[in-house]
Amino acid sequence: VPILLDQIRIVLVNTSHPGNIGSAARAMKTMGLNHLYLVAPQQFPHPKADEMASHAIDVVANAQTAPTLREAIADCTWVIGCSARSRRVPWPLLTPRVMAEQVKQALMITSDRSAEEKAPIAIVFGREQSGLTNEELEQCHVHVCIPANPAYSSLNLAAAVQVIAYELRLASLETDTIETEWREHPLANAAEMALFFTHLQTVLIELDFLKLTAPRKLMTRLRRLFFRSKPDTIEMNILRGILTAIQENRNKKEQ
Amino acid sequence: VPILLDQIRIVLVNTSHPGNIGSAARAMKTMGLNHLYLVAPQQFPHPKADEMASHAIDVVANAQTAPTLREAIADCTWVIGCSARSRRVPWPLLTPRVMAEQVKQALMITSDRSAEEKAPIAIVFGREQSGLTNEELEQCHVHVCIPANPAYSSLNLAAAVQVIAYELRLASLETDTIETEWREHPLANAAEMALFFTHLQTVLIELDFLKLTAPRKLMTRLRRLFFRSKPDTIEMNILRGILTAIQENRNKKEQ
Repeated sequence: VPILLDQIRIVLVNTSHPGNIGSAARAMKTMGLNHLYLVAPQQFPHPKADEMASHAIDVVANAQTAPTLREAIADCTWVIGCSARSRRVPWPLLTPRVMAEQVKQALMITSDRSAEEKAPIAIVFGREQSGLTNEELEQCHVHVCIPANPAYSSLNLAAAVQVIAYELRLASLETDTIETEWREHPLANAAEMALFFTHLQTVLIELDFLKLTAPRKLMTRLRRLFFRSKPDTIEMNILRGILTAIQENRNKKEQ
Repeated sequence: VPILLDQIRIVLVNTSHPGNIGSAARAMKTMGLNHLYLVAPQQFPHPKADEMASHAIDVVANAQTAPTLREAIADCTWVIGCSARSRRVPWPLLTPRVMAEQVKQALMITSDRSAEEKAPIAIVFGREQSGLTNEELEQCHVHVCIPANPAYSSLNLAAAVQVIAYELRLASLETDTIETEWREHPLANAAEMALFFTHLQTVLIELDFLKLTAPRKLMTRLRRLFFRSKPDTIEMNILRGILTAIQENRNKKEQ
């Protein structure tokens, strides 16, 4: 398995039909993807999942389950959410092709590290009927949208996985060198980002800058801003340090 | 419907499972393809085909049937057969991406003709288990092969249609090679970024977080972090607002 594909995690959120889990696993394996995570699947394990997986039954058998998206992506350094085009809160939106190129670049950045340090990249697919919630979409660094027919844009779940996996496979097969952004330190993972956002929100409330009665999408905007910058672990320490300094400064004055 | 997509005919040969016909129709319609031909389908019409088609039921309802491949492609000027890689008889073999580009070129050549003269291009998919026979493959001008995982290359029929239709759709969309990251507000300019960094440095000194005697590359790291995120003007207002809130909070305590 090419290293690029082995670092990718496909996450299916709250899937209704177990057959779709099996079909998605088959789509993954035909493109060389093996790591499947299921967030609160409605019926799993299930014989229909095994049946639809065909010879990708190993992908289904090795699937991990998690109760929430947050837990399924905690150790991932980049999280990509599949989304329909129009959303209340605009977010960086990539085509599958550009997404695959950016995944490749992100993984090349970490390619000089040992296998243990290579954090996974998650690609998150929502429910068959309703996709991902806004709260789930805001846990993603970027969104990817398959440029479907505006008159009928509803791809079957496994079909969407097939298209995304196909683009990732093509990106992994291309041998031409590309310009890479150089990063000295490992990227902060989703759990570290979540702790940072919680800390930031606490400080903004203490400063009376964030008023929960009139949040004005403030945290959404800040999540989007900091996700775009993809902080590394050293930068994350600095940001957390600044937040702590603001709090200590307040406490000092109050004494 | 873009003209390119309207001239394409998807031909499914001797399909076993009617559900696959419906799923293929759905895959087609999501990518803007509408013309489905069925060569000797084993069960058609069939309620399972309608069910799996979902909102692409019109594609199924309008499907043409033919007893042989030869009849289904008689009026086509270019015929492309989906094939596994290794075949007894070597034949021109394209990737889906190159195939889509060549279809686009072929249709542009005929674009100055009247609509009646625009002959369709056929893309032919074989049986679920055994694909196309050699005799059928030899009726095709070229073959197209999806570059699947050599360890498991068997895409579901509708999944193969989805990938081919996706590439055709991208070829038909002039703008799709461009990244679609959409920003609602203009980006902060260099002068605004410079004011922000000055403000940030002032606050960090006031917080005693930045010690000018031991700056530890702190401002350099923060500049790099915020430059990467390319803040827009609204985000810049929020960041400046937070800095001001920190300062006002200090002043309040000191009074």
